[in-house]
Amino acid sequence: MSSKPSIPKGSRDFSPEEMLKREFIFDTIRQVFRLYGYQPIETPAMENLSTLLGKYGEEGDKLLFRILNSGDFLSSINDDDLLKREKGNISSKICEKGLRYDLTVPFARYVVQHRDEIVFPFKRYQIQPVWRADRPQKGRYREFFQCDVDVIGSDSLLNEYELIRIIDEVFGKLNIAIKIKINNRKILAGIAEYAGVPERIIDFTVALDKYEKIGWEKVKEELIDKGIESSKIKELGNIIGVINKDNKAKVKFLNHILLDSIVGIKGIQELTELMDLLENLELKSSIEFDLTLARGLNYYTGAIIEVKSSDVNIGSICGGGRYDDLTGIFGMPGISGVGVSFGADRIYDVLTSLNQFETIKAHGRSVMIVNFGKKELNYNLNILAVIQKLGITAEIFPEPAKIKKQMAYADSKKITYVLIAGEDEIKNNDVTIKNMFTGEQIKTKVSKLVSFFE
Amino acid sequence: MSSKPSIPKGSRDFSPEEMLKREFIFDTIRQVFRLYGYQPIETPAMENLSTLLGKYGEEGDKLLFRILNSGDFLSSINDDDLLKREKGNISSKICEKGLRYDLTVPFARYVVQHRDEIVFPFKRYQIQPVWRADRPQKGRYREFFQCDVDVIGSDSLLNEYELIRIIDEVFGKLNIAIKIKINNRKILAGIAEYAGVPERIIDFTVALDKYEKIGWEKVKEELIDKGIESSKIKELGNIIGVINKDNKAKVKFLNHILLDSIVGIKGIQELTELMDLLENLELKSSIEFDLTLARGLNYYTGAIIEVKSSDVNIGSICGGGRYDDLTGIFGMPGISGVGVSFGADRIYDVLTSLNQFETIKAHGRSVMIVNFGKKELNYNLNILAVIQKLGITAEIFPEPAKIKKQMAYADSKKITYVLIAGEDEIKNNDVTIKNMFTGEQIKTKVSKLVSFFE
Repeated sequence: MSSKPSIPKGSRDFSPEEMLKREFIFDTIRQVFRLYGYQPIETPAMENLSTLLGKYGEEGDKLLFRILNSGDFLSSINDDDLLKREKGNISSKICEKGLRYDLTVPFARYVVQHRDEIVFPFKRYQIQPVWRADRPQKGRYREFFQCDVDVIGSDSLLNEYELIRIIDEVFGKLNIAIKIKINNRKILAGIAEYAGVPERIIDFTVALDKYEKIGWEKVKEELIDKGIESSKIKELGNIIGVINKDNKAKVKFLNHILLDSIVGIKGIQELTELMDLLENLELKSSIEFDLTLARGLNYYTGAIIEVKSSDVNIGSICGGGRYDDLTGIFGMPGISGVGVSFGADRIYDVLTSLNQFETIKAHGRSVMIVNFGKKELNYNLNILAVIQKLGITAEIFPEPAKIKKQMAYADSKKITYVLIAGEDEIKNNDVTIKNMFTGEQIKTKVSKLVSFFE
Repeated sequence: MSSKPSIPKGSRDFSPEEMLKREFIFDTIRQVFRLYGYQPIETPAMENLSTLLGKYGEEGDKLLFRILNSGDFLSSINDDDLLKREKGNISSKICEKGLRYDLTVPFARYVVQHRDEIVFPFKRYQIQPVWRADRPQKGRYREFFQCDVDVIGSDSLLNEYELIRIIDEVFGKLNIAIKIKINNRKILAGIAEYAGVPERIIDFTVALDKYEKIGWEKVKEELIDKGIESSKIKELGNIIGVINKDNKAKVKFLNHILLDSIVGIKGIQELTELMDLLENLELKSSIEFDLTLARGLNYYTGAIIEVKSSDVNIGSICGGGRYDDLTGIFGMPGISGVGVSFGADRIYDVLTSLNQFETIKAHGRSVMIVNFGKKELNYNLNILAVIQKLGITAEIFPEPAKIKKQMAYADSKKITYVLIAGEDEIKNNDVTIKNMFTGEQIKTKVSKLVSFFE
């Protein structure tokens, strides 16, 4: 094999330099999650396909990575079925497991499976990769990382309030200016009622979701295509009038038109209660009530939350909402939860665009000791041990290579100090310390090393 | 679906409590790796099967988890081939990718693929899960975590020296007493020469590897079964005589019998040079030159290292060695590397057996504020913000539930302090602080909270 090896398309290696930046993001997020009392869990990469199938829509089922059964995987298919070549039928017989597609469904499965060990409300976070057989493109990978934070077993709006504080604090610490959009699925249901198409809420919100991108005329066309009567569409058109007004104006308008919708009024109540709570805070981010925000509507039942960067146009970098019955699909109904997911990969791209990784330093100071060979080795190994005892990252170049090569190595690793102790230094119990960033070079006694680095 | 959901056999969920312990292990290992100048990389869970196949022996190939191709996975197989039901042929046509089986082969692939970006010697660590379709049993999982540390591009014995220091320091910090066994593949090659069966080195070492478990008589039988002449076996028997002697006696004996083996003498030189370097250190662990230590001999070419717990009988908890040509399989020959892998799951089991997780505390102090309802909410949210600003994990119970329920929740999360501010406290700008570990309860002014927690 002589051609360069490669990795599957849509997947990535992370170099030490990239890891440093990624760990900065994960550590920041993790630290905030912990500050608010969330605790980590992890679930396996492989789930039973029975856990995953049917949870992400037809399209999602197609995007699952399936694991071929071990052993004689064809044994349960007879020749006739084999020759029929029905993809769905055959793959369900030769694959029992799949890679997790998100962290929400495994979390719901976890809660139901471990219900007897969990004290509710259960506040958990989970930072793990997920896999989707999507067509890879810029910013979209087949293996990517989600950072989910959810509380399950409490329907108090304090949870939504807390999640928005967490969002504000995470992006504040990352120094990313954001706009937080919120909406409520019940308001969308109310609007669908107002338009006389309560049973068409999905068609209607999927179209409305595109308003920002394509404008009202195109949304109208889509609604007509979907068979919604033009008189109803006209009623919906009234709503467009307030879409760019401020939060209070929107609420006032909705209070007016949703007067007769029980679910709609409930939605407005929830939204205003949340807004009131948030008003008492000094958030760094702006909060916008966005009537057209719908997101993966299939399981959201209350608040809907989405975050966008104010400076970089890259789509949503965090989002989520309330779901009243996610564990119901696994036989444990009536448990309400709410959560959001941070998209680590897009956040990485935003920080790169903003040139904001500049400020991340490697893990503190580091030291490389020049290797002069056998004669000087014990002297230098002793110095090495002294530095490491201080908790400072330190290494001796493993071979007595040319000084130039050793220096180039230190340079490439962005090492802070190079320590030089050759024949001359050793004679006088000295060591030369070179600061690789300033170029400054001093000579000191070995006995003074600790006070230099302390 | 009403039966309890489950996860694939051999895989595990990790609860918050387990995560805390696992993070303690990973953080300890990571911290030591960094101290010695190793840098992290990560590789994708899926590799091309062409990268993985043939690297782990025939048995290993069978244990790879394969990913079913997306889309029309059967299209490249004709009916005849389908009906022949040749597992190997069909699986190679319907699966192009597999889950990584260890971290060593992906690392070799990484080095070759990114050779132009890497400055050698390249010191990397990698902490990620790996997957094997092994039969699950106690202590053996299908998804488990490896913590690998390798240096590639240097054949200096200082690298072996450094790895042994790392091993000693990691297990010292984890408070696990260990025995480090070392050997050298070149010595094994020398012994095979001495016994006149240089071409049978694998048969011979596989048998010798079992000496500790089954004794010399059984090893002898195995050698006879493998067709090694009984006169040769007698010569090998001489070695058994020194197996339980001290390191110096073993070296002396080998120097004698390997006099005519160039490779054997080289092996003894390497081993004694390493021993001499280590003798200058005050290691916590004992080091034993174990003539019978062979480990995954297929790619080791120099030092072989294995670590066992002195107190818990669980097999190897860390191991590795030098490989002179791992990147050769990917078209980049002549790069020597050496590394060891820490088995996080077995280390977890050892710490559990030793009851040594007792001492791990949650991440510092934590606070829960009792929720009395709407009227008291703003007062309590204000207290919450004050505590969190100090960087202390704090949460308010999301609902005005019964105090008993709220207390039980705090208890289950091992929260340090519960803060109580009801009507009475609020009247006087007070807050009651209950220490959940001592039961002690004091009342203080809200303005004094910061100095209490600082």
